[in-house]
Amino acid sequence: MKGTILYGPRDVRFEARDEPQILEPTDALLRLAATCVCGSDLWPYRGIDAPTQPTPMGHEYCGTVEEVGPAVRLIKPGQFVVGSFFASDNTCPICQAGYQSRCVHSQYVGAGGAQAPRLRVPLADGTLVATPDLPSEDLVPSLLATSDVLGTGWFGAEAADVRPGKTVAVVGDGAVGLCAVLAARQLGAERIIAMSRHEARQKLALEFGATDLVTERGEEGVARIKDLTDGLGAHSVIEAVGTQEAMTQALRSARPGGHVGFVGVSHGVQLPGRDLFYAEVHLLGGPAPVRRFLPELIDLVWNGKINPGKVFDLTLPLDQVAEGYRAMDERRAIKTLLRP
Amino acid sequence: MKGTILYGPRDVRFEARDEPQILEPTDALLRLAATCVCGSDLWPYRGIDAPTQPTPMGHEYCGTVEEVGPAVRLIKPGQFVVGSFFASDNTCPICQAGYQSRCVHSQYVGAGGAQAPRLRVPLADGTLVATPDLPSEDLVPSLLATSDVLGTGWFGAEAADVRPGKTVAVVGDGAVGLCAVLAARQLGAERIIAMSRHEARQKLALEFGATDLVTERGEEGVARIKDLTDGLGAHSVIEAVGTQEAMTQALRSARPGGHVGFVGVSHGVQLPGRDLFYAEVHLLGGPAPVRRFLPELIDLVWNGKINPGKVFDLTLPLDQVAEGYRAMDERRAIKTLLRP
Repeated sequence: MKGTILYGPRDVRFEARDEPQILEPTDALLRLAATCVCGSDLWPYRGIDAPTQPTPMGHEYCGTVEEVGPAVRLIKPGQFVVGSFFASDNTCPICQAGYQSRCVHSQYVGAGGAQAPRLRVPLADGTLVATPDLPSEDLVPSLLATSDVLGTGWFGAEAADVRPGKTVAVVGDGAVGLCAVLAARQLGAERIIAMSRHEARQKLALEFGATDLVTERGEEGVARIKDLTDGLGAHSVIEAVGTQEAMTQALRSARPGGHVGFVGVSHGVQLPGRDLFYAEVHLLGGPAPVRRFLPELIDLVWNGKINPGKVFDLTLPLDQVAEGYRAMDERRAIKTLLRP
Repeated sequence: MKGTILYGPRDVRFEARDEPQILEPTDALLRLAATCVCGSDLWPYRGIDAPTQPTPMGHEYCGTVEEVGPAVRLIKPGQFVVGSFFASDNTCPICQAGYQSRCVHSQYVGAGGAQAPRLRVPLADGTLVATPDLPSEDLVPSLLATSDVLGTGWFGAEAADVRPGKTVAVVGDGAVGLCAVLAARQLGAERIIAMSRHEARQKLALEFGATDLVTERGEEGVARIKDLTDGLGAHSVIEAVGTQEAMTQALRSARPGGHVGFVGVSHGVQLPGRDLFYAEVHLLGGPAPVRRFLPELIDLVWNGKINPGKVFDLTLPLDQVAEGYRAMDERRAIKTLLRP
């Protein structure tokens, strides 16, 4: 088959690769209905943490089970499934506590490269969640979104302790930040402040439930959040970028005793201990344990309660994946869906 | 009156100062039954964050109300009271959420210098908590401990989400770390691992409820915690030192999804964002909102349920305060109680 390989900065190619195989008895093989480009794929694409060798890309996926290993008991061929970028056994103490991305047996599913027609998923029974039935075509983008971008935004909101009646600020207007707005709305936040200066993203943020838009950044952005919250800061702040500026802005936008959930993959960030001490905010971040949320998120999508697939504002055939990266890199697209 | 003044590194003097006065209508004046030297006082004493001018020292106190300002309604002259090192109105939204140390009107009580016979306490009604009656002499050390060292250890345990059945590690065997052990026991932890290599402190840790002692530090200490927790790390870790080594050790000793409460005043600590991201632990620290816990802690002391006053292994007349600092600096004493 052909799949997506990153050779170096801005050099992404769609080319022949080996077909994935069942390697472990707990594996499943999927034929993907859709895959996509992640904001985090842009870091190596732009030469930050660039691969030292040609690397298969993609870690977001949904599709039909074609084959399972002999130890797979719950997942069946023919089912439509969604999984996270980390495979997890879903039974170890860490999984049971809801941190499946840090399962003691976790494996990075993206190592197989999900920007391809077929994908091997390890620990299939723990990792994959089947939809109630085969989905209609129009549900596929939103189901795909649950695999990472919505699951990650949702984790950001959970990590930021979003609850009914609270005021939430979201730093970052990429697809994850926008999904965090959606999550905050679903979790009952009263006021949701989206920090964005990009018109198309502002529009989607409002559609997803934002009540306020703040275009300022850095200290000015913090000052605006304070203005909107009686000088106190937000109860909950979700950071969905991963830069020093965004983390600093997030920490300073939360009130003392508030919560910051950070889900942007951290790049070059240093947090002075003293600033954290005197900020006195709860801080939690990391790779989202998407598996924890998948059953609920799939249910919300299946029943038409949410439509996170709207973050895909560009759909391309998989063989045009390079253009999909370019469009996101140049911020012409929020997020690119790829059809194998 | 005479009070304690820090002139520079290891130069602490007991000398004439102005008597404290009622300055604001919400003030109270106390005659102190006891005060003490805090581990955090040792930072400037050792020349780290040293004062640029002679500075009154001390921020832990309990004693009898001598006089109140005209706007004080709840606190009465003659009452025996305990308060925190931060004055708080106890009514603002931050106080109501339990973060009184960050009250929108917070003032540092220690600015008045509590290592003295008398002390001005601002925002008396919000800050001070009266005991049910005048205490017997033997209760005074434990009541004094609630003012900071126990309240801070307790906050560390709360920030680390200590709960029944959990495994807790405590980094730091100073008085706050030892009180964190006591707090963890009271909060129902099943296993409490005290990290200490100092015999007198180990003994008190065991008396306060530690179930295990770990003498190793740094990576070896982390490895021992992992050994004791099926390779996973502790559910809850309390950091009570404030150094880079202690923070790193604390973060690495917690399991993914676990909680780290840090109450050591942070000195020169830098936390790489990427380490925090991949540690995936809840982090909360800062100046303890002792006021939140005071009613409960006073009640536990009053009813003989806890005896945190045992952290005071040296009692001196107030005029020997310089020796009190020296004994703690040289680790001859865990904590020095001073009698005016």
